[in-house]
Amino acid sequence: MLHIFLLFSLIFTSTNVLAQDFCVANTASGIVTPSGYPCIMEANVTSDDFAFSGLGVPGNTSNIISAAVTPAFVGQYPAVNGLGLSAARLDLAPGGVIPMHTHPGANELLYVVHGHITCGFISSANKVYLKTLKRGDVMVFPQGLLHFQINAAGKRPSLAIVTFSSPNPGLQILDFALFANDLPSSLLEKSTFLDDAQVKKLKGVLGGTG
Amino acid sequence: MLHIFLLFSLIFTSTNVLAQDFCVANTASGIVTPSGYPCIMEANVTSDDFAFSGLGVPGNTSNIISAAVTPAFVGQYPAVNGLGLSAARLDLAPGGVIPMHTHPGANELLYVVHGHITCGFISSANKVYLKTLKRGDVMVFPQGLLHFQINAAGKRPSLAIVTFSSPNPGLQILDFALFANDLPSSLLEKSTFLDDAQVKKLKGVLGGTG
Amino acid sequence: MLHIFLLFSLIFTSTNVLAQDFCVANTASGIVTPSGYPCIMEANVTSDDFAFSGLGVPGNTSNIISAAVTPAFVGQYPAVNGLGLSAARLDLAPGGVIPMHTHPGANELLYVVHGHITCGFISSANKVYLKTLKRGDVMVFPQGLLHFQINAAGKRPSLAIVTFSSPNPGLQILDFALFANDLPSSLLEKSTFLDDAQVKKLKGVLGGTG
Amino acid sequence: MLHIFLLFSLIFTSTNVLAQDFCVANTASGIVTPSGYPCIMEANVTSDDFAFSGLGVPGNTSNIISAAVTPAFVGQYPAVNGLGLSAARLDLAPGGVIPMHTHPGANELLYVVHGHITCGFISSANKVYLKTLKRGDVMVFPQGLLHFQINAAGKRPSLAIVTFSSPNPGLQILDFALFANDLPSSLLEKSTFLDDAQVKKLKGVLGGTG
Amino acid sequence: MLHIFLLFSLIFTSTNVLAQDFCVANTASGIVTPSGYPCIMEANVTSDDFAFSGLGVPGNTSNIISAAVTPAFVGQYPAVNGLGLSAARLDLAPGGVIPMHTHPGANELLYVVHGHITCGFISSANKVYLKTLKRGDVMVFPQGLLHFQINAAGKRPSLAIVTFSSPNPGLQILDFALFANDLPSSLLEKSTFLDDAQVKKLKGVLGGTG
Amino acid sequence: MLHIFLLFSLIFTSTNVLAQDFCVANTASGIVTPSGYPCIMEANVTSDDFAFSGLGVPGNTSNIISAAVTPAFVGQYPAVNGLGLSAARLDLAPGGVIPMHTHPGANELLYVVHGHITCGFISSANKVYLKTLKRGDVMVFPQGLLHFQINAAGKRPSLAIVTFSSPNPGLQILDFALFANDLPSSLLEKSTFLDDAQVKKLKGVLGGTG
Repeated sequence: MLHIFLLFSLIFTSTNVLAQDFCVANTASGIVTPSGYPCIMEANVTSDDFAFSGLGVPGNTSNIISAAVTPAFVGQYPAVNGLGLSAARLDLAPGGVIPMHTHPGANELLYVVHGHITCGFISSANKVYLKTLKRGDVMVFPQGLLHFQINAAGKRPSLAIVTFSSPNPGLQILDFALFANDLPSSLLEKSTFLDDAQVKKLKGVLGGTG
Repeated sequence: MLHIFLLFSLIFTSTNVLAQDFCVANTASGIVTPSGYPCIMEANVTSDDFAFSGLGVPGNTSNIISAAVTPAFVGQYPAVNGLGLSAARLDLAPGGVIPMHTHPGANELLYVVHGHITCGFISSANKVYLKTLKRGDVMVFPQGLLHFQINAAGKRPSLAIVTFSSPNPGLQILDFALFANDLPSSLLEKSTFLDDAQVKKLKGVLGGTG
Repeated sequence: MLHIFLLFSLIFTSTNVLAQDFCVANTASGIVTPSGYPCIMEANVTSDDFAFSGLGVPGNTSNIISAAVTPAFVGQYPAVNGLGLSAARLDLAPGGVIPMHTHPGANELLYVVHGHITCGFISSANKVYLKTLKRGDVMVFPQGLLHFQINAAGKRPSLAIVTFSSPNPGLQILDFALFANDLPSSLLEKSTFLDDAQVKKLKGVLGGTG
Repeated sequence: MLHIFLLFSLIFTSTNVLAQDFCVANTASGIVTPSGYPCIMEANVTSDDFAFSGLGVPGNTSNIISAAVTPAFVGQYPAVNGLGLSAARLDLAPGGVIPMHTHPGANELLYVVHGHITCGFISSANKVYLKTLKRGDVMVFPQGLLHFQINAAGKRPSLAIVTFSSPNPGLQILDFALFANDLPSSLLEKSTFLDDAQVKKLKGVLGGTG
Repeated sequence: MLHIFLLFSLIFTSTNVLAQDFCVANTASGIVTPSGYPCIMEANVTSDDFAFSGLGVPGNTSNIISAAVTPAFVGQYPAVNGLGLSAARLDLAPGGVIPMHTHPGANELLYVVHGHITCGFISSANKVYLKTLKRGDVMVFPQGLLHFQINAAGKRPSLAIVTFSSPNPGLQILDFALFANDLPSSLLEKSTFLDDAQVKKLKGVLGGTG
Repeated sequence: MLHIFLLFSLIFTSTNVLAQDFCVANTASGIVTPSGYPCIMEANVTSDDFAFSGLGVPGNTSNIISAAVTPAFVGQYPAVNGLGLSAARLDLAPGGVIPMHTHPGANELLYVVHGHITCGFISSANKVYLKTLKRGDVMVFPQGLLHFQINAAGKRPSLAIVTFSSPNPGLQILDFALFANDLPSSLLEKSTFLDDAQVKKLKGVLGGTG
């Protein structure tokens, strides 16, 4: 029974069985393809690549929305490259809100770590799906649909962890998309039916031009 | 050389070679799955199933947006079931606009049949991509991103055909999603930063409540 | 500007724009396909379908592994059907362990809600990736690879939420697979090199026969 | 250490962990979707479902092509439903040929069990890739490209097993497609540049009309 | 309410939210993968990348088929990389024909811009699906199946725009594949049952050898 | 009718119709992505790239398992890159066994070339599916599930060819994963319930440490 190890090494007639069980992103390569980033060579991958501590750090909610989003997408967390998964942390201070937004490239699953959060999304049929979740509850938000989260814990903060069905779900915040760029106001107003005063006001606040 | 036909019939040892080259939707079955509708039995499929004439009929643009969308999604055109494709016709009368919207489930390619159309989309990075297209031009709109089309042919109408990378791309029109349902105004205002007066006005026009 | 609502209703020349933004599983239909379950008709879907409270309830860890797994797969949480996502709750009492196992159909992302958890997985190249995670840390486990989680919080419990890249990731627990069925001991021993005494002992404990 | 089995049964707080590791086709259901057939309930699946003996039986090569194709597609072998794989047996008597054909829905890998086979395929760039394979050799034929196999073992038969990247690869044999149906000869000649005499001759042999 | 912009910039704790909403092909990189080309860096992408004017230019139909195909595949139109879509323009002069061909990698949807076009495809079951389309009609051609288009507008030209379910659908024209390369005539005749005279004639015309 | 060739060359208005019918792996590029390796330029691809002779050579079964696995994965056989297929040869000498293992990334189809082989796999529901196959039989093994093959031909060898639904299926051999690395024995025993003596014995044999 000795020497099995040496004998086992004979089982495979090729030493070049490239496993590629995973593909930790080489984000420094300057290359990205429709399927994601090139992989770091497996020999250079360590346990540390698979773990990520960034979601354990509270986001800074001292801002106008009293909330913060901390992503663990492939850009921050290269291990999710090619795995069809990523995550983010949502900090909601009292009165906090994650404004109306979409993820163009992924479905989302939200888990409430603590607090209460009112969550809503709107379907293509313009139906509103609205729930106030408590600690331990989960809710899903289908890909590409407008949704939002609002703290419902009164004077206490809430915390949620969200996961996505893609390493790079994208994030389009409605107010940023409409009011924080150079889209001409005339086109914006014509395509949204918003009043000129409303558009000008929010462009002013969010830094939009045009 | 005679009788090859009879002999050929011996080549295959099974008569049950189910081809399933296509899967024309049985939309009357009451069943739909994540991959689409069940297929009509191939024996019942005819040439007429594969052709569709609905996009040849101008849409009625006598409405507030002076525009019309005529879909050829799987609901209207069962042959696209499972094929990763669908289409729609966009009629833009003078002054017409297809308002800001997204397709949660598909990329889009637009072809200008006649006229001039100003098209724009906004990326997750809040960058605006804007072009005025002429007859024969095409433009792509990536999945889930806000975009719009506006007639730029002056006093003449424009016509475009769009195709999608899914038989059922979905369609979320921003104004409908925000103002044409029962999403409470307080939540809407908190999550969009729109003024109460603006929200109330558009809800009034579009029939929204709450 | 009045009556826009009525006018808007003219925009679409078909009332049959089937959105299918989501596909809440009809698990009672008796039908399941490679892409998942048939969808409940959208008219019958409510907000309650998208939320799930089962992960807020601690699992019963009064068992030999001092641990519990509470799944929110499509069987328990029909809203994830077709969304490429599901979740589970891991309760680890002091000394608790989620034994060596694989998910044949999904990648996994683990988030530590509280406590400390030692997590490990083994690649096709037989390399061990091992980390002790603290509250807020995440770690990924690639599809189909053997992995385990062990409470590292001493006399305190730990809690983790895991999400998967499939609505139905599967779960093959090594000991159950080897010792809790009728696989003949001779075949088991020949294919695993485990001693007969070891096999018989664990079969006895886990109820295996043969 | 006694009673672990009973205790293990407490680990999972739900008894409804639907695995769906596989989806053996219920071909008698009358339902087929773009992702395949509905699954037989797992409780009714046996070992016999996963094995298939049909490829062990030589095909009848007493025909004009001196060859036979025996498929193990999902129609014959329901276990491959949803697995992204199927197979077929190619019997080539002396002088035998599998005529020019394509598989619209799958890539193919051919393995020579015995004999010698000349295999060729033609790319979109009209380049011919041609090899004469011996026992034990493999060759791949990319999806949708014209290819053929010809016995090159002289007076001896050859045998190959082919596998496909789909449970239902489809099979379009060029001569059947052109000459064994009711495609009007005028359209056929115009679209293929074949002479009328040639078309009429092969239609006559293969039973085509029009 | 001032300074929201600065405050908003605090919402995201990472500035590295790589969107990758799209992946405009860097066709000059010398790299192409199974999922497509590497992406141009988003900072270098402009509106001009998304629009394409090449389909607005009539193809030269002064050739033997009195027809022309102008592709907007990823090679010509890099914006479609990774989007699951591409397009082409079909010009059919009087008497024009797009000869029998397949797209090995995509389904196709044809839209008639003007004129009348007789379209046909042949299934794996050798059934012919034939329709004469008029302006505004659409028709789909499933992946990998032989099909053709013939001008049916008498003395007037016809124009169609086709879209595909892949950025790179491939194109195998039957006559080119059979007669415009070095496939030995003996193998060609044996695998197609075409007469030697017919093969020699078309090889002569199309430049084939062997 | 002369000069058709020259005229045909006018049909396509672009010479840059990149087909990419296939993507033979450039394994020397140092790049690999989630979708596979970059492609060799088509101009450099020859017939020899598509054929592979390695599976025609018997593996060396002079080892403790009296068996050998010869892979034709993308690392050995670059032509399968991107094709969703690969293969391997299993040699089983008398008494030979392919030990309990999984393929994390692919389903498997086994064909018995000669001999008799007892094959088994275990589902997520811990059910054993066991068959003894004879020459010409096939059996499928779903992705990620533990399975094994044992020679059942008495004093004669057996030979099987297996194909996979991925170019790089991965391979995790249970004994190697558990006992041939540095996974600490305490963690291994806690997560597998194997006795310390058993673990130490097999670690000794297989070269494991810790």
